Amino acid sequence: MQIATSLQQIQPSYLREILAAASSEGVISFAGGLPDASSFPMSLMQQSLHNMADKPVLFQYAGTQGYPPLLSYCAAHYQLKSEHLSLICNGSQQGLDLIARAFINPGDCVVMEAPSYLGALQVFGLAQANILSVNSNQQGPDLNELEQCFRDNQVKIFYAVPDFHNPTGVCWSLATRLKVAQLCCEYNVTLLEDVPYRELHFSGESLPLVSSFCVEHSIVLRSFSKFIAPGMRLGVVSAKANWINALIKVKQAADLHTNIPMQALLLDILQHPGFATHLVNLRKSYAQRYAKMAALISEKLDNFCQFEPVTGGMFIWLSIKDCNVMALAERALTLGVSIVPSDVFYTDAKQQPSALRLNFSHTPLGQIATGIDRLSQSIKDGD
Amino acid sequence: MQIATSLQQIQPSYLREILAAASSEGVISFAGGLPDASSFPMSLMQQSLHNMADKPVLFQYAGTQGYPPLLSYCAAHYQLKSEHLSLICNGSQQGLDLIARAFINPGDCVVMEAPSYLGALQVFGLAQANILSVNSNQQGPDLNELEQCFRDNQVKIFYAVPDFHNPTGVCWSLATRLKVAQLCCEYNVTLLEDVPYRELHFSGESLPLVSSFCVEHSIVLRSFSKFIAPGMRLGVVSAKANWINALIKVKQAADLHTNIPMQALLLDILQHPGFATHLVNLRKSYAQRYAKMAALISEKLDNFCQFEPVTGGMFIWLSIKDCNVMALAERALTLGVSIVPSDVFYTDAKQQPSALRLNFSHTPLGQIATGIDRLSQSIKDGD
Repeated sequence: MQIATSLQQIQPSYLREILAAASSEGVISFAGGLPDASSFPMSLMQQSLHNMADKPVLFQYAGTQGYPPLLSYCAAHYQLKSEHLSLICNGSQQGLDLIARAFINPGDCVVMEAPSYLGALQVFGLAQANILSVNSNQQGPDLNELEQCFRDNQVKIFYAVPDFHNPTGVCWSLATRLKVAQLCCEYNVTLLEDVPYRELHFSGESLPLVSSFCVEHSIVLRSFSKFIAPGMRLGVVSAKANWINALIKVKQAADLHTNIPMQALLLDILQHPGFATHLVNLRKSYAQRYAKMAALISEKLDNFCQFEPVTGGMFIWLSIKDCNVMALAERALTLGVSIVPSDVFYTDAKQQPSALRLNFSHTPLGQIATGIDRLSQSIKDGD
Repeated sequence: MQIATSLQQIQPSYLREILAAASSEGVISFAGGLPDASSFPMSLMQQSLHNMADKPVLFQYAGTQGYPPLLSYCAAHYQLKSEHLSLICNGSQQGLDLIARAFINPGDCVVMEAPSYLGALQVFGLAQANILSVNSNQQGPDLNELEQCFRDNQVKIFYAVPDFHNPTGVCWSLATRLKVAQLCCEYNVTLLEDVPYRELHFSGESLPLVSSFCVEHSIVLRSFSKFIAPGMRLGVVSAKANWINALIKVKQAADLHTNIPMQALLLDILQHPGFATHLVNLRKSYAQRYAKMAALISEKLDNFCQFEPVTGGMFIWLSIKDCNVMALAERALTLGVSIVPSDVFYTDAKQQPSALRLNFSHTPLGQIATGIDRLSQSIKDGD
């Protein structure tokens, strides 16, 4: 039996391969996008898990949209407009996939930042979208390029990660947020705002959501993977009711509904009195790891690489001029450190400056120096 | 933003609407396909749930294929060939959807039994398959019709529910199993064998899987929803490695992987010393409910309806001649009992004899008589 045409166009994921290798014994992984398992709020789960065995109703079939008390929490906590709805998904990745299936016909134009999140490239590739790229800078997407792209094409969706972007770590400026929202309204483009890293600011407060400036032209994708735990596979999509109802129709065919016990557990964690402290500690821990990695890069790699400081998230984007980063990644792996080469984050990497994505959330503080030493050695080996 | 063309063709699910109405206070539901929540093996979960809070590794990102110890259990328990693989999904519904996405191009021929499982009709509709129907009898699909259909069309997949079929409750005879397997091999059709009710035989043993007679031409979809608990949303697809690898590629884009804590919980239940007793009790309870409902139908509806006895599963298929069953279902609902009219299980209901699907697994033994009385009244009201 031949596989479908849409799937034949999807390349095997390089990231999946490197992640498999990166999990080998002794390899320090700066490659994945994994949170720190020792940060998971296990103590906030204890009572909830214990009580679950007395609640058979959580194990019965349920509505497609999600566990009603969790939906109520989302409506209140995210201050959704009364005519907007949420849908609970198996991680925000499923939300993304449902959106592509519900709204994208083959050939429809989807704009993405370059570089961009690999999982989104896969989803829109599978939907056979026409993916257009817009370059990014330290404030977010290049606004002139974005406007030109909106003007020259019939764009359906602009997919963006404005808070601590994956892979660059960039957090869009307020001015960029306002302008992007205005352009989406003007050109009738739906902003798909993906904010998995939003809670991971090292200090201060979050900037307003871009979608808060273009509420009726946007869909927000939230994830609980990065600040609670990814193995639970929970995310939520919010938008106006007729769009969410279209997603519910696809979700029903896709898997009926998201598992209920995990939704109930998630709600208990979010409402636990200790949850605020969990967030404070998580931010402090990631800020420490980032500071350590940033200092070591400045100290050991200053001759080869540059990076812009980040104020949150999980990643450092390390520019490294005129380098075959695919070869470097392989060399680094043989020396016991994994990183992700920039090529995998572009639809067309040839025209792009070379860089590496380094994750700082997963490696214990005490191992970061060894990892950077190994990376330094592998860069010098290629010199 | 316009919804995609593929979704525009999907009708809103009648079943979803009637199920919503059926959950109203005071309505006795023979409509859904729900297992009995009081049968869920909660006591087998207690220790596992309690220990889970000490296992942060279960809450981390994981491989797309599934929780490795559960995959090993499946390989051993289902006696898979060494070159075959399994993939853990969010219920067998997701397995079905992944198969359609991985293998079906718009216009590809998929054969289904008529009547057929609604969720499969939705999935193959969304994939824009050319759905062909073959009529069924008490032994399974009509074999002459099936062979003619295979001969006249380039059929890619034959989707079938051989064990206690939804909606008819039919369990295919051994002769039919052998012949269907032979036809699939002869015409190079992939058998998609969906067996969610397989464990629910009232007595004796299961017949061999149809796919056991055409292993290389088949994909098996298993579900844990009907004999453990559906809210966990867990199922498993098994087939030869290159087919499962295609599904893994789609699954990765669809939601990265199925949630891990529920997979670990499932494995603990399956390996619990009390699990065999749970199954025995479940079968006994469903056999009792079936016997009660069957006796009441014979007693109260004998003038209007006929049904063939079933030996397991969750459903009775009640033939009712020359009846507008959609109108009957509405009338029944106003009298406080919900049933599913046959029309929804056909791609073209006009040519088909009218019938009702009655579920006997969900309604407590003590309420079945009241439900049948109400149904009897609503049939008489329409006379």
